[in-house]
Amino acid sequence: MSDGPRVVIIGAGFGGLEAAKALASAPVEVLLIDQHNYHTFQPLLYQVASAALTPEEISHAVRGILRRQRNLTFRLGKVVTIDKEARFVTLEDGTGIGYDYLVLAPGTIYHDFGVPGVREHAFFLKSLTEAVNLRSHLLAQFEAASADPALLEQGALTVVIAGGGPTGVELAGALVELFSRVLTKDFKELPVDRARVVLLELSPTLLSPYHPDSQAYTLKTLKQRGVEVRLNTTVTRVEAQRVHLGGEVISTRTLIWAAGVRASPLAETLGLPLTRGARVPVAADLSLPDYPELFVIGDMSASQDAAGKLHPQVAQLAIQGGKHIAKQLRRRLRGQPGEAFRYRDLGSMATIGRSAAVAELPFGLRLKGLFAWLAWLFLHLLYLVGFRNRLTVLLSWAAEYLTYDRHTRLLAPMVPSPTEQQNRSGRLGAKAPFMKSR
Amino acid sequence: MSDGPRVVIIGAGFGGLEAAKALASAPVEVLLIDQHNYHTFQPLLYQVASAALTPEEISHAVRGILRRQRNLTFRLGKVVTIDKEARFVTLEDGTGIGYDYLVLAPGTIYHDFGVPGVREHAFFLKSLTEAVNLRSHLLAQFEAASADPALLEQGALTVVIAGGGPTGVELAGALVELFSRVLTKDFKELPVDRARVVLLELSPTLLSPYHPDSQAYTLKTLKQRGVEVRLNTTVTRVEAQRVHLGGEVISTRTLIWAAGVRASPLAETLGLPLTRGARVPVAADLSLPDYPELFVIGDMSASQDAAGKLHPQVAQLAIQGGKHIAKQLRRRLRGQPGEAFRYRDLGSMATIGRSAAVAELPFGLRLKGLFAWLAWLFLHLLYLVGFRNRLTVLLSWAAEYLTYDRHTRLLAPMVPSPTEQQNRSGRLGAKAPFMKSR
Repeated sequence: MSDGPRVVIIGAGFGGLEAAKALASAPVEVLLIDQHNYHTFQPLLYQVASAALTPEEISHAVRGILRRQRNLTFRLGKVVTIDKEARFVTLEDGTGIGYDYLVLAPGTIYHDFGVPGVREHAFFLKSLTEAVNLRSHLLAQFEAASADPALLEQGALTVVIAGGGPTGVELAGALVELFSRVLTKDFKELPVDRARVVLLELSPTLLSPYHPDSQAYTLKTLKQRGVEVRLNTTVTRVEAQRVHLGGEVISTRTLIWAAGVRASPLAETLGLPLTRGARVPVAADLSLPDYPELFVIGDMSASQDAAGKLHPQVAQLAIQGGKHIAKQLRRRLRGQPGEAFRYRDLGSMATIGRSAAVAELPFGLRLKGLFAWLAWLFLHLLYLVGFRNRLTVLLSWAAEYLTYDRHTRLLAPMVPSPTEQQNRSGRLGAKAPFMKSR
Repeated sequence: MSDGPRVVIIGAGFGGLEAAKALASAPVEVLLIDQHNYHTFQPLLYQVASAALTPEEISHAVRGILRRQRNLTFRLGKVVTIDKEARFVTLEDGTGIGYDYLVLAPGTIYHDFGVPGVREHAFFLKSLTEAVNLRSHLLAQFEAASADPALLEQGALTVVIAGGGPTGVELAGALVELFSRVLTKDFKELPVDRARVVLLELSPTLLSPYHPDSQAYTLKTLKQRGVEVRLNTTVTRVEAQRVHLGGEVISTRTLIWAAGVRASPLAETLGLPLTRGARVPVAADLSLPDYPELFVIGDMSASQDAAGKLHPQVAQLAIQGGKHIAKQLRRRLRGQPGEAFRYRDLGSMATIGRSAAVAELPFGLRLKGLFAWLAWLFLHLLYLVGFRNRLTVLLSWAAEYLTYDRHTRLLAPMVPSPTEQQNRSGRLGAKAPFMKSR
């Protein structure tokens, strides 16, 4: 263990993990804190929710990832307060931990934009537990409808997804495939062709920041595959078994909220003015203007481009931010001046389903269809943590592509973490998505 | 769907699944009922508990396994009563289901032999949820001790296993390996060499029914690998953080009860005299003497050999029983007389750990050490359900053998099913094995 200054990193997502790794040979002592003992590859959560990958294929124990890093300690726990003046953080169990440098990388939670009922009744897709429990809930709906076909009329097999960004698009595409290719064979006694996936989008287009060609291809492909896409549509209220769109009502037991995110509640405890989505304004080097020893990276950071536009909340922003602040810390320790963070847009991709995706790469290169899908596959395999995970994910995908089957449809809900229970009430809390007695 | 007589099978374990498959081309209508939507390969539960395999590697959706069987329907639910006279079963949700033939294959639950505190405080290893939650609990103990080393003195890293049969032996061997090979690298800040695995056995030998040579090898190997084996030792009382052995007390937060099983509580609802372990006495063909349309197979059946000795409660008994009663059903439908069930002992095996196992095969053939371990590996791969699972399990085991690493140590507890919550109280119920605030 090094005896240098202590760097505390909050969050073992893409940003925190990258920052920790990039400090491996720095003369500092790193303490990484996360409320889970595992890192989750968030961009593939929708594949866990749609029974394509297992939880273990997109998650890895943090201690396992960093076990060779000598200047690092991991602490399982939840940070509840930050004392910027005295430079210490307090965990939920009361432990106080002092720091010389603090890196805030806790990511985001769902943003309900004040729509009533979302917090109580919607499903989210921000954590492994939520993905597993959405999968279990969907399977439970099919089992319930199998036992009592009348439930079909009550929307048991209707899934409504709010939000036509990448998460909503990818999940909608994956779910129609799960229903039409897999569950239709599992539940021969049910008219699975009547199962509905409804994708709602507030704006006039899906995948707002993408090129109109990509948007049009996405819309066309989703519709061809059976997704009911409804643009210019606003959710006004959510009940346990109903979603209200102004005057119209859709009967459903499954509303998935992919309409927006806001920074972790930790942002609000900083006592600073926040931007849209509760992001924390930062100086050019990603530190806080009045607290140069405190850095904010990833989705919580309100870093912006030269035109003053907030950077997109994607994995690359967190990864590049983690690398950047590690470099700045090294520079400071050597007495060198700070450098401004420059986000390099490596492009964005969204999978619509089997052999169909859109990709917008640097230099204006755009792909769609099979080539975009292959590029997506390749890049995601490349980035997945750990050789073993990559290999089994490749096997899973290959097996599913060839057999049209999915191996992981266990109805086996996970216990939400205390934080997940606290950030919401209702469906995912004490109540498990097991089948209920009637 | 066939219109023949209706065969209701309760339980999708080895016995129920085998019976269902063996009836695939019979002129009957099969309804398979289980309270989980997946089949679990129970002999490998200890590998999930010790973070060697993922839940998905030893479980498979029942509908997926049987999706090509045209005369079969699956129903997710829990049978609570059986009306032998009117021939119908009632599910927890109130649904009544009539049958022409009934196959009881619900397996066993733990047997506490009246030892106070076992029900409330012990961990069991009979279901996937229990295995996953034991894994999460163990990881939580290490995380807690990392945060507060004083917990070490309170037995946070002491695991006590009651019962020196195959489950206790295999789990003890797997846990010392997990601690000494994996967690010692994950938790460099902890003196993991002080973690203890204590294996208690009531009788003077481990693996009672095995040959004395196998027993001696097992005892010696476990001790060499660091398991504290205590023979002739009785658990008299269990508290939340203490196990009493008569006057002696061991401080521990983890008592795993592998001392015995009893038939599912469903046996007691039959209104029949039961044998030791609540097994149901059956006629020679595995039907009930006064109810020839009702068969009992697997661990719940009190079938016996020619000498009147109860058959061992192992997977093979259930598999062979399932095949047998399917054959008897076909014979009856053709008006042929019933045949007696003959259990064919294919031998037994127990793994002690890396390159070490004991195997007792037919014709008096005994193996121990590496060859027994290779035989064990081969046979378990052969029997694991579904090609894909076999391949990834092989990969997992190969990767672990070569790297001394385990990829699946997520602290991610599962929600116990309503039945699991009902069969016990305390630790695994509402309280999740997440880290507690102090």
